[in-house]
Amino acid sequence: MAQLIADRRDMEFVLYEQLNAEGLTRFPRYREFSRKMFDMTISEARQLGIREILPTFVQGDRDGVRFENGRVYVSECFRKAHRLFAEGGWITIKDDPEVGGQGFPHMVAQAASEYLVGANFALTAFGTLGHGAGKLIELYGTSEQKRKYLDALYSGHWGGTMLLTEPSAGSDVGALTTTAVRNPDGAYSITGNKIFITNGEQNLTDNIIHPVLARIEGAPAGTRGISIFLVPKFRVNDDGSLGEFNDVVCTGVEEKMGLHGSPTCSLTLGGGGRCRGELLGEENQGMQIMFHMMNEARLDVGAQAFTQASAAYLYALNYARQRLQGKDAAAGSDAAQSPIIRHPDIRRMLIQMKAYVEGMRSFVYYISRCFDLAACAGTSEEAFRHRMLIELLTPVVKTYCSERGFDVCTLAVQIYGGYGFTREYPVEQLLRDCKITSIYEGTSGIQAMDLLGRKLTMKNGAAFQALLCEMETTIARAAAMPELSDMASGLKTVVDGMKTAADTLIQLMMSAHLLEALAASHPFLEVMGDVIMGWMLLWRAAVAVPELLRISGSASAVEELSPAMENNRQAVFYDGQLKTAAYFIHTLLPITEGKIRSLMRRSDEVVRIHENSFGGL
Amino acid sequence: MAQLIADRRDMEFVLYEQLNAEGLTRFPRYREFSRKMFDMTISEARQLGIREILPTFVQGDRDGVRFENGRVYVSECFRKAHRLFAEGGWITIKDDPEVGGQGFPHMVAQAASEYLVGANFALTAFGTLGHGAGKLIELYGTSEQKRKYLDALYSGHWGGTMLLTEPSAGSDVGALTTTAVRNPDGAYSITGNKIFITNGEQNLTDNIIHPVLARIEGAPAGTRGISIFLVPKFRVNDDGSLGEFNDVVCTGVEEKMGLHGSPTCSLTLGGGGRCRGELLGEENQGMQIMFHMMNEARLDVGAQAFTQASAAYLYALNYARQRLQGKDAAAGSDAAQSPIIRHPDIRRMLIQMKAYVEGMRSFVYYISRCFDLAACAGTSEEAFRHRMLIELLTPVVKTYCSERGFDVCTLAVQIYGGYGFTREYPVEQLLRDCKITSIYEGTSGIQAMDLLGRKLTMKNGAAFQALLCEMETTIARAAAMPELSDMASGLKTVVDGMKTAADTLIQLMMSAHLLEALAASHPFLEVMGDVIMGWMLLWRAAVAVPELLRISGSASAVEELSPAMENNRQAVFYDGQLKTAAYFIHTLLPITEGKIRSLMRRSDEVVRIHENSFGGL
Repeated sequence: MAQLIADRRDMEFVLYEQLNAEGLTRFPRYREFSRKMFDMTISEARQLGIREILPTFVQGDRDGVRFENGRVYVSECFRKAHRLFAEGGWITIKDDPEVGGQGFPHMVAQAASEYLVGANFALTAFGTLGHGAGKLIELYGTSEQKRKYLDALYSGHWGGTMLLTEPSAGSDVGALTTTAVRNPDGAYSITGNKIFITNGEQNLTDNIIHPVLARIEGAPAGTRGISIFLVPKFRVNDDGSLGEFNDVVCTGVEEKMGLHGSPTCSLTLGGGGRCRGELLGEENQGMQIMFHMMNEARLDVGAQAFTQASAAYLYALNYARQRLQGKDAAAGSDAAQSPIIRHPDIRRMLIQMKAYVEGMRSFVYYISRCFDLAACAGTSEEAFRHRMLIELLTPVVKTYCSERGFDVCTLAVQIYGGYGFTREYPVEQLLRDCKITSIYEGTSGIQAMDLLGRKLTMKNGAAFQALLCEMETTIARAAAMPELSDMASGLKTVVDGMKTAADTLIQLMMSAHLLEALAASHPFLEVMGDVIMGWMLLWRAAVAVPELLRISGSASAVEELSPAMENNRQAVFYDGQLKTAAYFIHTLLPITEGKIRSLMRRSDEVVRIHENSFGGL
Repeated sequence: MAQLIADRRDMEFVLYEQLNAEGLTRFPRYREFSRKMFDMTISEARQLGIREILPTFVQGDRDGVRFENGRVYVSECFRKAHRLFAEGGWITIKDDPEVGGQGFPHMVAQAASEYLVGANFALTAFGTLGHGAGKLIELYGTSEQKRKYLDALYSGHWGGTMLLTEPSAGSDVGALTTTAVRNPDGAYSITGNKIFITNGEQNLTDNIIHPVLARIEGAPAGTRGISIFLVPKFRVNDDGSLGEFNDVVCTGVEEKMGLHGSPTCSLTLGGGGRCRGELLGEENQGMQIMFHMMNEARLDVGAQAFTQASAAYLYALNYARQRLQGKDAAAGSDAAQSPIIRHPDIRRMLIQMKAYVEGMRSFVYYISRCFDLAACAGTSEEAFRHRMLIELLTPVVKTYCSERGFDVCTLAVQIYGGYGFTREYPVEQLLRDCKITSIYEGTSGIQAMDLLGRKLTMKNGAAFQALLCEMETTIARAAAMPELSDMASGLKTVVDGMKTAADTLIQLMMSAHLLEALAASHPFLEVMGDVIMGWMLLWRAAVAVPELLRISGSASAVEELSPAMENNRQAVFYDGQLKTAAYFIHTLLPITEGKIRSLMRRSDEVVRIHENSFGGL
């Protein structure tokens, strides 16, 4: 029976064999948990994802959203799925029990969310965006604000948003013009226009809480003068009941390439002079507070793209096993038609997709583990180290997964051939939906600048150094295994190359060649992502080798999968880990070496070409 | 004033400065023509494309097609545009005047078609597919068949199709099951089901002529037993008037990711036992005849994808010049917002798009020139050489342009940011429409096998050798210019690497490692495409250098564009050619070197990985 959305065996491999999620239960924080509880929870998520959420994937796309007289109506099929998602406690699966959360480790929450987000991220966003707004209130709100908003947001009864973007302030958030004027009663009158607001208006929840970036009269220009406000759609009375409409008017929804089920709204705040907001945190602290939400959102977006890729891979794989077309090139001309998985070019696409999907899974879970290890750390240094790694890796996971995830969806369409271009199969929608991930919550260009300009040099380069140490550990472990020593040295070469390229670019950033460095920021991020894939796949292979030795009963090196072992599901799985790592390291990493050489070549035509030389005038 | 669809200056550069289209007028075949006539014709095409066809691009997508009681209704906005396209003689622009054509060189026809196909290839396909069917009749039909069909098809009054694909015979054409039974009157009764038929049914033309692949009772299995038949939608009386309905029933249209204006139909032939077809050519000659149409169609598909990329580039470039966002990194913090073309990562995307678009333009026109030179050749050897080059390059231009074209469209969406994902701008549609090009008329995998398995070794490798000679000529010319000697040696390295890789793969194809070679066929095609881009861009630079020397009045090497020369439009254009070539050769070709090393590494996990190791079970 073919799997949907995510490969459970691989998920368990990452959780328990690669990243030791069970080990977390030895820490006081997670001592109430057991592997059995983790597994049950993931199975529940799978059931909910496949039975209730997945059917909304296509339906939500076909229905789209309806905008009428300032109201937005989402697909009716979302109602039940959202309710089950909220009532199941999935919104707060990793939150503190103190605030009503389930308290699961991030790693397990990530595994569960693969089935939920992967089933339809247009749908789960209603809950997770509400959670994001709630998290800001949990961290920065007054006890009064928590009392008023938190439960309703965390339970999915109310939705949430992020109101940053304006028509002239997209990537350049500091250019926003929404204003806040303090009233005698302490509340603020908010006036402005916001665009591209996911779930900015919808009929799925009773109320919507908008965290809004705005500038208080007289505040400094740029990002330093931005404050953040809680602006409800309907004002909230002291007893928690809903009061009057708060003058947040939806003026339109975007017609988009994909993610049709998810409303992307334009909002006018205070057009009638009656939009009131409450300051969250201190004045002019807006960017700092919003960045908390933004960083989580960026990690989520990377994970969204990965789940789309995972789903696309499984669909394409299943199709390749069932679709008969052409003959096995190794068979005679009288042979019957073969499943297309026997054709070398189809296998090439599949192994490439597998390498990226599994590499991304390990990468995404690894970051979740950093959260868990930071929370369980015995010393503040250790906790700090894990938090640094998260900060460093955030722009990489956001951009690399969104771009490689899109590539995987594109390959899935290709494997389906003409059928892939039709709406009869879900892969074309995965491709359309996935495209947004390299754009929203900060485009790839913004992420690349963040990586090169801030994260690599953060704490004097300590985060990057910590990452290199982690990679070295894996390389040393693999180098000690005869089966993997070649791969280990292959990875070592690109890790060293990446480090040299990073040093070169950091020097350039501080020189007169700043623009040249910035032009190289995205290519560098791509190299770093490639290297991380290689690292994760080698790590997987290093876990698989001892298992293969154990299964085969051999004391020496792993041989090619023997006919006897072909019927052993575990052996077949572990051997697949070795083959995938070898494919990636021997076939794709040489291309990454080329990318590194390209960076070191330091060609600056991107900067020097005259603006008019681009043509088109 | 920003240009649309295609950059006229660059088009003229390729036509007259790189490929010497004017030189064709010295041959008897084209002596009636002049550059002035070429230019007027291209200007007319531009007018028609921008004024009449481009407005149907978005409208056709929004309207889609309507299927009702076996009839297909296309967007009404197509009617006038199709009429003007047909009446203007664009369908037969490069055909012999003997058959009613305009007799223009292929190169000029290609330039004109950039504006027409680039404006909306869903629309122009009604004419060009009719032309394709007509061409088969012109080449293989009886004089009776020509009399009945040719004028109506070439004038666009009737449409045409290609009926190859069946539900179980897609890439594996030989598996088709449509049958033909000879009747006493010499006509054949056709029975079968065909799918994915572009324009298989539509209400834009009075009749549709379907060239249909079918197997005559008793014919051999596989491709050897396939014949081709002319099957009209309405039978044609001897006087050319339309007779009864020919039992070709449209049973549905595909809902697709893109190309919504273009009907993709399922057809049932002879469901009522009354579908009659006329044999075209000889029995069992079907594949050979259809391949004539298919080869032209593959070249056309490569050109379609290129034109989408060209349009996407110009839209994105124009947007990048107008959209203000963020500040120039080199300017102070008080500076006003800059157009985003000033940001290094945007420039990186733009120069990459420019390199591919211009490289593809030269590549596509180069193949057109091969047709022209073959037609004008003084000796049969020379003509043969050009025809070999066309055959060799057909799978490359089809696949490489469709894949890089898609990438360019994706970058265009990225440059627009959030706006790019909306339907407010045309780039998301270009991306959706372009995706089909790597699939239809033979997927990328099929093209790659054709290249490696047939074209590289064709005539004992003579075609590939001829291509290498052409590249060597450009390299030698550039190596003699101090400004280009570095680039020339950069290109030489990858040309040599490609040749070595080709030799290795050809050996592998004849060994027990056949499957490994096939798994490398697509990566090899990609290398070949990259090398061709580098060749074309170096060739362009070698044309630009003498022009820059002439403009600057310098006898020695070209300096950086001086402030004085920045106001000289020609200097700015030529300098752009140098910068683009340098960018591609120094920044992207090192990655191609990595791809070559990857091929030479000969890793065979793609073949060896167990089918079940792909997971998902």
